[in-house]
Parts: sequence; structure tokens; C-alpha cells
Amino acid sequence: MQRWLRFNHAGKLGFGTLEGDRIHERHGDMFGSSEPTGTVLSLSDVRLLTPSAPTKVIALWNNFHALGDKMSLAPPEEPLYFLKSPNSYLDPDEEIRKPACEGKVVFEGELGIVIGKTCSAVPEAQALDHVFGYTCANDVTLNDIINRDPAFAQWVRAKSFDTFCPFGPVVATGLDPATLTVKTLLNGDVRQDYPISDMRFSVEQLVSAISADMTLYAGDVILCGTSIGVGSMKPGSLVEVEIAGIGKLSNRFV
Amino acid sequence: MQRWLRFNHAGKLGFGTLEGDRIHERHGDMFGSSEPTGTVLSLSDVRLLTPSAPTKVIALWNNFHALGDKMSLAPPEEPLYFLKSPNSYLDPDEEIRKPACEGKVVFEGELGIVIGKTCSAVPEAQALDHVFGYTCANDVTLNDIINRDPAFAQWVRAKSFDTFCPFGPVVATGLDPATLTVKTLLNGDVRQDYPISDMRFSVEQLVSAISADMTLYAGDVILCGTSIGVGSMKPGSLVEVEIAGIGKLSNRFV
Repeated sequence: MQRWLRFNHAGKLGFGTLEGDRIHERHGDMFGSSEPTGTVLSLSDVRLLTPSAPTKVIALWNNFHALGDKMSLAPPEEPLYFLKSPNSYLDPDEEIRKPACEGKVVFEGELGIVIGKTCSAVPEAQALDHVFGYTCANDVTLNDIINRDPAFAQWVRAKSFDTFCPFGPVVATGLDPATLTVKTLLNGDVRQDYPISDMRFSVEQLVSAISADMTLYAGDVILCGTSIGVGSMKPGSLVEVEIAGIGKLSNRFV
Repeated sequence: MQRWLRFNHAGKLGFGTLEGDRIHERHGDMFGSSEPTGTVLSLSDVRLLTPSAPTKVIALWNNFHALGDKMSLAPPEEPLYFLKSPNSYLDPDEEIRKPACEGKVVFEGELGIVIGKTCSAVPEAQALDHVFGYTCANDVTLNDIINRDPAFAQWVRAKSFDTFCPFGPVVATGLDPATLTVKTLLNGDVRQDYPISDMRFSVEQLVSAISADMTLYAGDVILCGTSIGVGSMKPGSLVEVEIAGIGKLSNRFV
């Protein structure tokens, strides 16, 4: 198991692996071959960046039995997804900003799948070979606007305001996603605590089905959807998404 | 009025301006400052690329009175939009591929607004200062899947299969968009022929409203939506989107 991250140190972009609070810097391609530079940094010396720079972030809707059952949603026949726009990507520890558009802003703690190799129509049995690892994400949403036009559901817009897609702090490799649990804390109180094993579509099924539609590239992220406990944030709220084995993503809403 | 393009020549990416069938190559930043390299190429010497490399392509729904009226759609209170994924971007003259997912694939000829400067919450009166120019686009769509799940409209997926977003061949600057007309030809027959002046939301309104939600970057593209005459393509169909003053985008469906 390794934990990979990207960072800004003294104005320069770098990447490496994290051991305790020490970063072992590497050069090369995070998703291909890389070697240690020999530099070891302390976590407190750097500003963390999103652990990959995706061409796209795909996000699932209605992918957990517990939330779907609570909302009386029929099980979908196929993965249902939207995109979060690149302007929404947000680094760990940075502030989630309230958009000008009025409405309640909610957190949704989620598991993010980080793709490691270009793939297209990959069979389920080979899907995990194309996954680099897993990260924590907050699928921030302006809920009130989704259905305010009766003819057109505004999923993309509700999910794509600037700063609405924090993810990180690391990508962890060598994990079995089915054993993971997502916890979301609002000002220190646990508001979500749900198992990834409750997903309607597994990681293998998601990567296989989505890659049949759209070529996936190294660094692309699939957000697996959320489960029960979603809630709204108030100015000043601290939201942390914690997945044991990966780490804790922290962002304050302002 | 200038017409800008990007191209691959002898394996190298270049950009420049088009005069007749001669490309005057430039170096620097297409959206900032650039100078002629002195090289003049013939159009037939290069492979054209999409005229910008957008971080996002935003596309409008229900933005023309004529199509909205025909479909009995209520006028929207605000611009309604989705995203087309980067894997869907397609160069001029390249082939649109039928996805594995079953269903009718339709063409939608559209005007594309190409952003020239980073902008956020720009007032309508200053919106055009942030537009670099205009291009032709085909908002290819797998119509049949949009509403096949009763609870979740699959706009992003229907619009984001690989090769589903051809645009180009150039970005034309110095045009008044309200004077433009979009023509779409299927195997040489005119199937769409509609004026941009029929838009529900003007270019100024679109750039202002969308930039209030999402920061726009140089090279980002807003597809203005389509009007009447949309139709399906058959294997072998040639689709051309022609806007006088810009040029003609040609792609074959295979």
C-alpha cells in the first residue's frame, strides 16, 4: 500500500509518496515509471494539491442501496452519472465558496476511483488493472436548483460551481475498495458512516460500464456516489471526508 | 476579421491564421500575444485540430425559440446547460463513431462561442470583451437514452461518447454573432438553416450567466444550442456544419 500526493513546494509542482508525515519526492510519471529524487519533505512544508489533474470527474447518482431505499428510488438498470466541471476541482484544505446562485449547499462524502491507464470498453474482470488507487472526495451540491426548471434537471450546474469538487489528500494504492468505509464529519460530528460494499454498482462494474461510453485517462476520477447522512453547510462549517486506509480530506465552507 | 486554427504539421502542433487556403503560422499564445514565424503552409499540408483545447465544453438546451415552440417547451427562466466530456472532442474531418450503446445518433449543428480570457461573473455589457471568437460545432447526441431512466435524465452521457463533439475548423474573430446563420448539411442536403438572432439567450447573456456559475478560461467553448431540422445519421453519412463568415466543419459518421 502506498499513498501518493501532489504538492506545491516553494512555488514548484512536485509529487511523491507519503510515509507518516514525510513526503518522499519522486520524478517521472506518477502513473507510469518514476524514481525518488532523494528529497524528503515534511507535510507542513508544502501546500497539497488535488492528487491528480483529471481531464474529467464523473460522478454517480443513486449508487447506494441505503440512500436509494430511504428515498424510495428504484434500482437503476445501469450506472447513472453526470460530470463535475474542472473549475470545481479544489485542493485539500482550501475553502469551498458559496456561489452567487441562491440555495442550500450540501456536502456529500464519497469514494473517488483514480484511473491509472487509458481504457476503453474494459471488461469487468480486467477493470481493476486500470485503477491506480482511491481517494476521498466531497461532491458539493447546490441542491435547490436541480429541479427548479420542470423540463430540465440541472445536475451539472448544481455540482459544478467553482470549488465544488474537493478531493484528496492522497491516492492510496493496493486497497480492496469493498472493505472501505466513508465517514463524513461536520464540525467534528460524524454525519455519514457507510460501507462501500453497499454500492449498487461495484468499482469493477463502474469502470467497465463507463469506459464503454467514454475513454478514461490516467488521473481521471469516478466519484462513486453518496449514501445517507448528506447535510447542508453553514458559513464557517468544517467538512472532513475520512476513509481509513486513505486519509482525511478537510475543507471549510465560507 | 481573422480566422485562427490549430494544426499538426509533420508531427508538430502549430497554430496560425488562415487566408484563403494559406496558413500563416504564428508562435506565442493564440489568446494572448503572438507573432508570425514566417512559415506559410498550405491547408493541404496539415491535419487540422480542434481550434482550441478547452478545459470544458458547455452546451445549451432549449435556447432557440423556433425549436422550443415546435416542441412546445416553455421558455426557460435561465440558461439550461450540460457538459460534453473532453473524450468527445473531435478534430475537423475526423470520423464520428457509433458507440456500443444502442440507439439513434443525431446531429445538431451549432454555433460555438470560444472564450478568450479568464472570466468570472462578467456583466453582460463586458461579456463580449471576454469572447475570442466563434466556431462551428456538431453536438452529436444518442437521443434514445436521455429519458430511458425515469428518475434521471442522462444528458451528459448521451452527449459525451467518444467523438461526439466535433468543432472547428477555425475560430473567427471580429464577427457580430447576431448576424450569423447556422446551416447543417446531411450528405449535401440542407437540413438546418437557422439564424442566431432567434436565440432565447444572446451571446452576452450566456457568457454573463454561465461565468457567474463557473469560471471560464481561454479556449473554453459554449455551444449555443440547436434549432429545428435535427436528424439522425446513418453509417457513411457526411455531416457539414457551415456558418458563413466562419467556415465549414465536415465529419463523416461511421
